[in-house]
Amino acid sequence: MISRVLSAELAEHAGQRVTIAGWVHRRRRLKSVSFLVVRDRAGLAQAVTANDPPSGTRQAGPSDWGLPAEETVVAVTGTVAANPQAPGGHELVEPSIEVLARPGAAPPFDLYRPAVTAALPTVLDHAPVALRHPLLRAPLKIAAAGVAGFRETLDRLGFTEIHTPKIVGSATESGANVFAIDYFGRPAYLAQSPQFYKQAMVGVFERVYEVGPVFRAEPHDTVRHLAQYTSLDAELGFIRDHRDVMAVLREVVAGMLESVRRRAAPAVSLLGLRLPEVPAEIPVVHFTEAQRLTCSSEPDLSPAQERWLSEWADREHGSEFLFVTGYPMAKRPFYTHPDPHRPGYTNGFDLLFRGLELVTGGQRLHRYDDYVRALAARGEDTGPYEGYLQAFRYGMPPHGGFALGLERWTARLTGAANVRQVAAFPRDLHRLTP
Amino acid sequence: MISRVLSAELAEHAGQRVTIAGWVHRRRRLKSVSFLVVRDRAGLAQAVTANDPPSGTRQAGPSDWGLPAEETVVAVTGTVAANPQAPGGHELVEPSIEVLARPGAAPPFDLYRPAVTAALPTVLDHAPVALRHPLLRAPLKIAAAGVAGFRETLDRLGFTEIHTPKIVGSATESGANVFAIDYFGRPAYLAQSPQFYKQAMVGVFERVYEVGPVFRAEPHDTVRHLAQYTSLDAELGFIRDHRDVMAVLREVVAGMLESVRRRAAPAVSLLGLRLPEVPAEIPVVHFTEAQRLTCSSEPDLSPAQERWLSEWADREHGSEFLFVTGYPMAKRPFYTHPDPHRPGYTNGFDLLFRGLELVTGGQRLHRYDDYVRALAARGEDTGPYEGYLQAFRYGMPPHGGFALGLERWTARLTGAANVRQVAAFPRDLHRLTP
Repeated sequence: MISRVLSAELAEHAGQRVTIAGWVHRRRRLKSVSFLVVRDRAGLAQAVTANDPPSGTRQAGPSDWGLPAEETVVAVTGTVAANPQAPGGHELVEPSIEVLARPGAAPPFDLYRPAVTAALPTVLDHAPVALRHPLLRAPLKIAAAGVAGFRETLDRLGFTEIHTPKIVGSATESGANVFAIDYFGRPAYLAQSPQFYKQAMVGVFERVYEVGPVFRAEPHDTVRHLAQYTSLDAELGFIRDHRDVMAVLREVVAGMLESVRRRAAPAVSLLGLRLPEVPAEIPVVHFTEAQRLTCSSEPDLSPAQERWLSEWADREHGSEFLFVTGYPMAKRPFYTHPDPHRPGYTNGFDLLFRGLELVTGGQRLHRYDDYVRALAARGEDTGPYEGYLQAFRYGMPPHGGFALGLERWTARLTGAANVRQVAAFPRDLHRLTP
Repeated sequence: MISRVLSAELAEHAGQRVTIAGWVHRRRRLKSVSFLVVRDRAGLAQAVTANDPPSGTRQAGPSDWGLPAEETVVAVTGTVAANPQAPGGHELVEPSIEVLARPGAAPPFDLYRPAVTAALPTVLDHAPVALRHPLLRAPLKIAAAGVAGFRETLDRLGFTEIHTPKIVGSATESGANVFAIDYFGRPAYLAQSPQFYKQAMVGVFERVYEVGPVFRAEPHDTVRHLAQYTSLDAELGFIRDHRDVMAVLREVVAGMLESVRRRAAPAVSLLGLRLPEVPAEIPVVHFTEAQRLTCSSEPDLSPAQERWLSEWADREHGSEFLFVTGYPMAKRPFYTHPDPHRPGYTNGFDLLFRGLELVTGGQRLHRYDDYVRALAARGEDTGPYEGYLQAFRYGMPPHGGFALGLERWTARLTGAANVRQVAAFPRDLHRLTP
């Protein structure tokens, strides 16, 4: 490995001669000295160098500076000196610069400007270079930290990680919005969720989770839908009802935030984020109460109602999180467990966060006969579900689970208006590259 | 949550009255007592109960036992008593049994028999119930522990987790063996690897990894190929050459094994596995030396040669792992970095483990012009690679990486002859369900 220290470690090497390596983030020429700001995975560091004797021309351009252009890959060796103005309070003096690779073109927008000056389509078209901008890579670091916290929490609670098929023989969640695929000459589909597999695996490991891609042929161009997104799925058995699932979800969300604080502190600080607190008990309203509060009689909550309820929870309960429970049967998938005490309503829930539905979950049916009845009630044949229903023929405990969309979570945390801003290479109706 | 202790925790509750919950693994009736063996996620536990007064018939069948059938989901409350013959050395006496869910059918084969009595197709057709067999679920536990060790090691080394598109606009690794998909009326493909994306992300985070599904429309029915498998991918920048990648890979493999030992000890013990030691320095042979040793002049190694070389490494170096480096250009993908000292050969490597190629990796090209030249040399147009090549226009450090197939790794560790035995719901030429 190239022997070097990271930008963030300079202070530990004050007075020593060390090498840093990274990309030229910015060159700046003052009257008698020039600065070379280098970007590496840990942040920025600067090297300061005396200017060459005046070249005679007053308007010497960047190519005359003797400093490599922005995005050149360099290793810079110098002596670490304190300078309160430098990033991290230290800089390299008396540097020698080795060029490791030269760029063939200038980036489509200046990566060194504090704000992102390009519009979203330009950013997305040039993702491999655009994501180098500190403000654009920070959300991906926060996403990674969140996922690590998801796993860490569930590992601690005795869950087992699984990997399930993304190619399935029949459309699962619903017939609509599936991508068709040619599977050795036979029709097949991309999985819209690991729903049925994670339920089946409750029969094997009791508590399972999966982090993986799911696919929705979403024909609408919205700021909160992607054709592929990363779904954080969990499912657990031996519950009493959906409230046990909500309790685990509360731990998971708290664990994800704790992990973001611990693992992505520089990104949080760079973006100036205020991370939410998770109350020991997240407030809960029943769907009928949510209707009453928003003066509605519709069988589902609109985005405007979700926003209103979120604000209400913040105002009344000091919580940026709110559980809505008991959604009507008609609006939940057939595998949702009904509320035994309230006909027409379910043990399904949503978790709202900052005005948006973040997680959907609930208790599921666990008896084979109940599945057959539930499908019949919707006028559906059991045929396409045979593989799915198999697990329930052989004894399944009461169970439930939830799914959290990673991009939606990251967008809410970072204040991104569009989920495309927090996915490395988003896929949507119009976008298949890069 | 149903209040209970796990089977493996019984010993900690000696003398107390506790509840266990799980599936009826087996019923056994002796002359005066009967045993109910319960399986939960931690293992097996038994409850012992006095038989009812003799029913008068000498050949009372299982239905007369008064004990629920195999795979019934139960909660059993009893007093913990020591019994050296019981699983874990303790059992529940004076039990009361609550049935949580009854199976509608008997499993396709007896899950309680120590060995798996069904043939592989039966196991795969009935995966949701078959995987409940302790011998069949153990490899999945070992797989999960291995993946956890992969991430843990790379997190420690400063890597960032990424999630990349599985739907791509053009076939990447090679034109063959890709699944075609209808993407909103346009042709698209399932990604054969995250290769290009992980390379691009080296420009953002320097060191990245991804755990995710990859897809190969493999038209051959072999014991080591699947149409979907879980790929453990890593890529890192600022390397000197492929040897730095090999050093990281050595750490990763050691970390995966350490994690299996720590997180999956019961599964390792149940399967009676001997886990390999990873030498501080894994032995290395150059491809030309491997040819000499196996008396071959072919431009690639056959499975038989790989086996021979593995045995040789074990015999000569006491290592079950062997690096083969320097594969010929003609046999490696176009993005492979040539060996600057040996024309015609590359900085690409394979890691052999117990006779099989487990990992492929190497140093990659990092200059845009080198990519253009490499594609031209293979008579390929740069058009389909534009998105890929973009990252290299803007300055990329010397970098490399590797990919490890999770199912192949797990099969080698557990001694499974077929990768289908260690995937929960495998996909192949003939199999699309369950």
